[in-house]
Amino acid sequence: MERTFESLSWFSEEYFDLNGSYYETLRAPPSALEFSRFIHISRPVVIEGFELPALHQWSDDYLIRKMGNRTFSVAVTPNGRADAVTKGPDGLLYFVEPYARDMSMEAFLSTIHNSKRGGEGNIHYLQSQNGNLFTNKYFEGSLEDLSEFEPLRADVLAGVPWCTEALRRPPDAVNVWIGDSMSVTSIHNDPYENIYTVVRGAKHFTLLPPTDSCYLKERSYPHATYTRPDPSSQELVLTPSLLAPTVRWSSIQDPGAPGALDKRAHPINITLTAGQTLYLPPGWWHHVRQSEELTIAINWWYDIESRGMSWVMLRFLRPPEVPLGNGSEDERSEA
Amino acid sequence: MERTFESLSWFSEEYFDLNGSYYETLRAPPSALEFSRFIHISRPVVIEGFELPALHQWSDDYLIRKMGNRTFSVAVTPNGRADAVTKGPDGLLYFVEPYARDMSMEAFLSTIHNSKRGGEGNIHYLQSQNGNLFTNKYFEGSLEDLSEFEPLRADVLAGVPWCTEALRRPPDAVNVWIGDSMSVTSIHNDPYENIYTVVRGAKHFTLLPPTDSCYLKERSYPHATYTRPDPSSQELVLTPSLLAPTVRWSSIQDPGAPGALDKRAHPINITLTAGQTLYLPPGWWHHVRQSEELTIAINWWYDIESRGMSWVMLRFLRPPEVPLGNGSEDERSEA
Repeated sequence: MERTFESLSWFSEEYFDLNGSYYETLRAPPSALEFSRFIHISRPVVIEGFELPALHQWSDDYLIRKMGNRTFSVAVTPNGRADAVTKGPDGLLYFVEPYARDMSMEAFLSTIHNSKRGGEGNIHYLQSQNGNLFTNKYFEGSLEDLSEFEPLRADVLAGVPWCTEALRRPPDAVNVWIGDSMSVTSIHNDPYENIYTVVRGAKHFTLLPPTDSCYLKERSYPHATYTRPDPSSQELVLTPSLLAPTVRWSSIQDPGAPGALDKRAHPINITLTAGQTLYLPPGWWHHVRQSEELTIAINWWYDIESRGMSWVMLRFLRPPEVPLGNGSEDERSEA
Repeated sequence: MERTFESLSWFSEEYFDLNGSYYETLRAPPSALEFSRFIHISRPVVIEGFELPALHQWSDDYLIRKMGNRTFSVAVTPNGRADAVTKGPDGLLYFVEPYARDMSMEAFLSTIHNSKRGGEGNIHYLQSQNGNLFTNKYFEGSLEDLSEFEPLRADVLAGVPWCTEALRRPPDAVNVWIGDSMSVTSIHNDPYENIYTVVRGAKHFTLLPPTDSCYLKERSYPHATYTRPDPSSQELVLTPSLLAPTVRWSSIQDPGAPGALDKRAHPINITLTAGQTLYLPPGWWHHVRQSEELTIAINWWYDIESRGMSWVMLRFLRPPEVPLGNGSEDERSEA
């Protein structure tokens, strides 16, 4: 497919001229019909008043008591950047997945609280995002839906009523996320309708519309994983996955850093506090930071409408694949 | 803006791979929420069971009795092609608007019925499309909404309930169309949500998605109007409008003619009979023929959602402007 940076840049500018950086804030959740209109507009919306028992119940004590001895998978990195581009010991850039460690809620929360007081050094983030609360198997009525967080399910709605009705389908995955300011989610987009509720703390989103895809400088990076070769040590080692395919990822580390983003890009900054919900439409780029205090969020991913133009559009807006991202000095210095 | 034919052609093919030529047929009108989903998908839908008093009442006798001596504007052409590209006496191609003539319903219907029995020769088509039943002024409560068809309003809904509710706005214009197989509507698209109900007869639509815009061979044509210089004669003369701007229009005269359409285009043929309603989304190209018998239709145009990507998308999919369409032999021979 031939398409020029100039044509994508034109698209970005026309889209911005029409929409600006405006986003709507609703004082109460929308009806299914109202939400259906927002799906069509496909811009972020902040929604207040979407009530979940979790909002009122999820103190540390409650979470520890409910979860008991159960363990769940926690992402561990030396730098708080799970699923991100990082320089390896060989000086090359890799897309690095975190080390995964099973922990109880008590051990996990105390590790997070201690990390700022000089804990073990590694950064812990619950971000398993595999439908850790509810998977699509749950909605199909399968017994194979084994949630690591089964005791917390009663505090969370399995689906967002107005979204499920608007899309006429249950979510594909429901996840709980727990971390603090030590963890950052690198900028990326997902081909999903995303409903995101902050339960405790705050999330700081930097969003860019799909029309800004041309400014995200996606590159193909070799894959690596943090491993812990010495069980007696906490040290994590960046280990290239020799057989894994490369991963296409934005080479922009922090879109908020001076000069990191092309001046023609159109970021929108939204801080979401406890009790607020974000509608994040498919294809919207997001970089996410968290507040100093413990931050808990829940998200519901719904499949995108496959009919019509949305899917083709999102593909079209991403410039052609670029070879391995280890070629130029400026890419190295960004990492 | 730089964008290549190849990139638009890629878009057309990907869109077709995903959507095919499929269109949905509903046995009953949708709810507002169901229709909102169709707006997002933005593909044609045939809807049955949308009831209007006009469907049962609009016999010739009824129309003549209700309208009495009132006159309305009728489009008159020598060839049945109002608002179409036509060769002028100088051999050049023009975008030609019809001669407009005021007629009573009785005179108009008898002219149409006689035309096939060797009437005056010119083709008559009620296609004023200026909100001849209801304009947006009506919905604003203005007294300036002077409908030529006021006596027929009671038989037509001012708005389509499920569409008005889905879009949360009244129509921009509601029109009645009356003609027969002598009149053809040349292929074009409109930046409107369009609901189209056939009251009598049948309409034959050839539709192409907005992603096929690159195959429509739009050109810029000088403007002309049919005039009637000699009041004692019915003869119409194609008269160039020297001061009018050129009109961008498809150079494809009949997309159904062998070889007229690029082989890569993806036409969908839909015949709509009395009692059926078509949802024609914004930007969809349509060429429309009518049945032998008298065909009456009503359409409701609604403004497109201006927020989001739809508007920018439709602009993007149309290739850059091409100079006057009188340059090449193949364009002349098509006319």
